[in-house]
Amino acid sequence: MRTQVAIIGSGPSGLLLGQLLTEAGIDNVILDRVNKDYILGRVRAGVLEEGTVGLLDQAKAGARLHAEGLPHEGFSLAFDGRDHRIDLYELTGGRRVTVYGQTEVTRDLMERREASGALSIYSAADVTPHGFDGRSPFVTYTKDGAARRIDCDFIAGCDGFHGASRKAVPERAIKHFEKVYPFGWLGLLADVAPVSHELIYANHPRGFALCSMRSATRSRYYLQCPLDERVEDWSDDRFWDELRRRLPAHHAEALKTAPSFEKSIAPLRSFVAEPMRFGRLFLVGDAAHIVPPTGAKGLNLAASDVHYLFSGLIEHYREGSDHGIHAYSQVALARVWKSVRFSWWMTTMMHRFPDTSDFDQRIQEAELDYLTHSRAASTVLAENYVGLPF
Amino acid sequence: MRTQVAIIGSGPSGLLLGQLLTEAGIDNVILDRVNKDYILGRVRAGVLEEGTVGLLDQAKAGARLHAEGLPHEGFSLAFDGRDHRIDLYELTGGRRVTVYGQTEVTRDLMERREASGALSIYSAADVTPHGFDGRSPFVTYTKDGAARRIDCDFIAGCDGFHGASRKAVPERAIKHFEKVYPFGWLGLLADVAPVSHELIYANHPRGFALCSMRSATRSRYYLQCPLDERVEDWSDDRFWDELRRRLPAHHAEALKTAPSFEKSIAPLRSFVAEPMRFGRLFLVGDAAHIVPPTGAKGLNLAASDVHYLFSGLIEHYREGSDHGIHAYSQVALARVWKSVRFSWWMTTMMHRFPDTSDFDQRIQEAELDYLTHSRAASTVLAENYVGLPF
Repeated sequence: MRTQVAIIGSGPSGLLLGQLLTEAGIDNVILDRVNKDYILGRVRAGVLEEGTVGLLDQAKAGARLHAEGLPHEGFSLAFDGRDHRIDLYELTGGRRVTVYGQTEVTRDLMERREASGALSIYSAADVTPHGFDGRSPFVTYTKDGAARRIDCDFIAGCDGFHGASRKAVPERAIKHFEKVYPFGWLGLLADVAPVSHELIYANHPRGFALCSMRSATRSRYYLQCPLDERVEDWSDDRFWDELRRRLPAHHAEALKTAPSFEKSIAPLRSFVAEPMRFGRLFLVGDAAHIVPPTGAKGLNLAASDVHYLFSGLIEHYREGSDHGIHAYSQVALARVWKSVRFSWWMTTMMHRFPDTSDFDQRIQEAELDYLTHSRAASTVLAENYVGLPF
Repeated sequence: MRTQVAIIGSGPSGLLLGQLLTEAGIDNVILDRVNKDYILGRVRAGVLEEGTVGLLDQAKAGARLHAEGLPHEGFSLAFDGRDHRIDLYELTGGRRVTVYGQTEVTRDLMERREASGALSIYSAADVTPHGFDGRSPFVTYTKDGAARRIDCDFIAGCDGFHGASRKAVPERAIKHFEKVYPFGWLGLLADVAPVSHELIYANHPRGFALCSMRSATRSRYYLQCPLDERVEDWSDDRFWDELRRRLPAHHAEALKTAPSFEKSIAPLRSFVAEPMRFGRLFLVGDAAHIVPPTGAKGLNLAASDVHYLFSGLIEHYREGSDHGIHAYSQVALARVWKSVRFSWWMTTMMHRFPDTSDFDQRIQEAELDYLTHSRAASTVLAENYVGLPF
């Protein structure tokens, strides 16, 4: 089989790239090692920047998002018993974010892809990129027990942190940057109205907490926890009690509870691989970088990678110029590092670090005090939260 | 002897407080363990915020400052071979800083004090505050071999980091916060025109450098150096060569040199003591807190302490209210911690730390990249540099 762009991974970045290319008349095939139901079973957050929403519109997958997504014009920083609203809309000259689950984004893109007739191959084992250093790259995989091959012009590695794309790059050609945080997030999903219609990021001496939601009737809450915590040790009651302790009183009193239907612990990590292009192989999204979830940048960063790569491919196929393709890694990484910095900063500012010094603790408090009293500093938080320009 | 306010220390904070009180008709005596020439022999930087200039005017000691001080409306951040101007004036809605040596500030205040007839006692040994927990504090000292005592209403401890005031407080009543940086600044003074009419803060792989000045014909340059560096190992030539290496090419080429007449190495430290009031004893300036020189906050922070203390004393003597006095520590510390945070942040952003991780190095680069591309982030730097409001 032959295609123009072989895309490894059918998560939101692979699907978004695929549908942008399909809409632009560029042939592409998506390969994934698992099946659709597995992909749609992943629980992920979803706070979408306007740039991400614009790309989903461009991919003709934005209709349900506009109908059902929750536009948010602000969020709360809770600390020291207080609650301070960051007015995103006012601080950024009229910009918003949209709360819409990543799983729904994936579902919408998959449906659009099926309607467009573009090819996705699921349950493809041993997907491996080859020959990307030369002019004739190809991808091999096994399907139904038989070895298969797709020849292509380019390979997009959209297969996540643990995917095959980055692993196919020789070690000497890639440099890894990493920071592991000394805590995790214990998350809980429940069908109950959220405590507030906007997100609450809470810094409390007992640790960080986040009040988030998927919809007006489904809440997603998180608690900072030690890395060795076990989810089995957290009954719903224990979770709700601990959440109440970490929130300002008026929120704690307003908190409604319901039985959870999902509880899990996720570690927090910052990770960047450089470069993001190896000849005709491009790393996109989580395949190239991971951010801690504070600030909700993961999916949006994948979308901006897709934007740069799509622009480069359009330039290649329409104008015969490889300028955009050659610039992909540098341009994408400049924005990646700014988002990695923002996610690191917001994580550092909002969490309690074990073994932090008294000095560093006061610096954290001074930063929150300054941030909430300075319009410029509030704008720094807001403009990063709604998303830096592509 | 009896006075209303006994001031320990005849540096700029003690002198400023003394002259504000004198102008307001409140009797005060300044005591210092050393003599005037010793105090005037200290080499100190001087970048004055408008609030500091306003206080010097209020103390009737601003005339020469306005005649000879250099108003600065911006400075440069040099990194990655580039030079980025932070336009303080434009970013802060018309605010400036004034470059005017701290030694000159001290000299002007001393002259004003002599003209006003207010009492300063120099070469006073063993100056010690007493009884500040009760209603009748007093200060003892030895002068010309004889034990002396001054009774007073209040004691202001303006005697610096190593002074007697903070040491007079019982250990259990005070908490120290400290951060020591793993490098120092090697400074050089020379009578030569500065390389630029504005300050240049340079972040270079070989370490931080600062191009500063005292006047249009006297330059002050600094190089980040290891803590175990010895000033004897730095010939003028070695200093100039190293400075050139750390500056963007156009500055390195423009650098004019001359024989140095002062060279020294200073360690960098952040330090805060809490609280800043102990009954009728107040800690002011370096007696309560130290910041690294990056950002030039030390003297300005002392001035804002003086402002808060002076306001409280005025309230006490004119309105019979102790509200301002009781609030002194809390109000002063809120601003202190913001300046300590700013100085720490600017130090962290501009220096190369030994043993920094590759990840942290990239975060530093991303911060500079973001800062110089975002108006909000540039404003954060500018508004802190010109000084947060009292």
